[in-house]
Amino acid sequence: MKSEKISQLTTNRLSIYLRCLKELASEGLTSVSSDSLADRFHLNSAQIRKDLAYFGEFGVRGVGYDIALLRDHIIRILGLDRSYNLAIIGAGRLGSALVDYEGLLRSSFHVKALFDVDPKKIGKKVGGITITDLKNFQSVVKKANIDVAVIAVPANAAPDVFEKIKKAGIRAVLNFAPVRLNADDEMRVRSLDVNSGLESLSYFLTERPQPGDKPKPAGKARKSAQ
Amino acid sequence: MKSEKISQLTTNRLSIYLRCLKELASEGLTSVSSDSLADRFHLNSAQIRKDLAYFGEFGVRGVGYDIALLRDHIIRILGLDRSYNLAIIGAGRLGSALVDYEGLLRSSFHVKALFDVDPKKIGKKVGGITITDLKNFQSVVKKANIDVAVIAVPANAAPDVFEKIKKAGIRAVLNFAPVRLNADDEMRVRSLDVNSGLESLSYFLTERPQPGDKPKPAGKARKSAQ
Repeated sequence: MKSEKISQLTTNRLSIYLRCLKELASEGLTSVSSDSLADRFHLNSAQIRKDLAYFGEFGVRGVGYDIALLRDHIIRILGLDRSYNLAIIGAGRLGSALVDYEGLLRSSFHVKALFDVDPKKIGKKVGGITITDLKNFQSVVKKANIDVAVIAVPANAAPDVFEKIKKAGIRAVLNFAPVRLNADDEMRVRSLDVNSGLESLSYFLTERPQPGDKPKPAGKARKSAQ
Repeated sequence: MKSEKISQLTTNRLSIYLRCLKELASEGLTSVSSDSLADRFHLNSAQIRKDLAYFGEFGVRGVGYDIALLRDHIIRILGLDRSYNLAIIGAGRLGSALVDYEGLLRSSFHVKALFDVDPKKIGKKVGGITITDLKNFQSVVKKANIDVAVIAVPANAAPDVFEKIKKAGIRAVLNFAPVRLNADDEMRVRSLDVNSGLESLSYFLTERPQPGDKPKPAGKARKSAQ
């Protein structure tokens, strides 16, 4: 396995391949060609070959990839052959939703702590996890050996929470607050910003107006760009 | 304004610039240079100039950008000078969290419908929105003039929901289900996949182990990659 850094786009694709391979394995299949993998999951077969070749030789000409072997290798590449302890900061609906988010339940990521500042919430349980006072962040993070912090607080609270995370020595952050957080080289922040997602969709809807496609009331029409 | 397509990465950056400009405007500032915009928000000033030059001349040498003018222009570019009606499918914790997600409340996106298949949920209200039977999706979508569908259902239900969305003629989808959905050219799907986000963080944590940085118990150490 080459040791150069691979891009976030590549790790995203590896995540997708992994999901596809797990699905194929669960159907009892043992090998798959890049073409049929691409066909089945609407991926790009040349891209698959390129991405996988980067990590070594997995394919056998005329036979395809060994599904179990490739799956296990991607698991190792992505560091998913160990478990990660998650702390969620913010026990609102979003933070609470994440505690038992279906995708997490069967993943390498395990929610170990849930924090909030609201005295009415502290001490209550969500999905088996007791909501802890954010004041005790440092000590709980240390005791629970937290690897990844998930920010699910309002935007105006996020920068302070981020500072707490930094101070606690947590190096990986998943951020849901609609605010930009500045990580140094020792940390990595992934933002899942609902608004940014929607804004690129609105750009798409604006970019290619197809009036015949779906009528809009006149009052809602977009002003023409200068 | 040039009419070529701009990439999703660019629209993501425009979203970020917009957020920064709104913040500066709320502080009463009227102009900002690309350098101070970059400094203040830890952005890349050359990238800012490049992105904005693409849409026309906004900067005045020695003075900087007119904040209100630039903000309004980005709003138009992103198609945010009109409002969009959202339908959320899945009234679990995640879907419910989105109904009153802080970022949406002051945005161009307005939740107009919330669907579920669970008879116990149908008819109940979340944040002022009544949960509707998914059976009535087509008619409700038409009546409420839905522009964007948000998928917040379990992975195994997502493909069927996606088909319903397609049939209803909705062209933009924000997907939270940990599953790949195949859009044709007439549609755009943005996936906010919690697992993919976490998997790129685990890759980061794996890629650059810094044993002095934060000790891990021996039992949790990652097997060495081949």
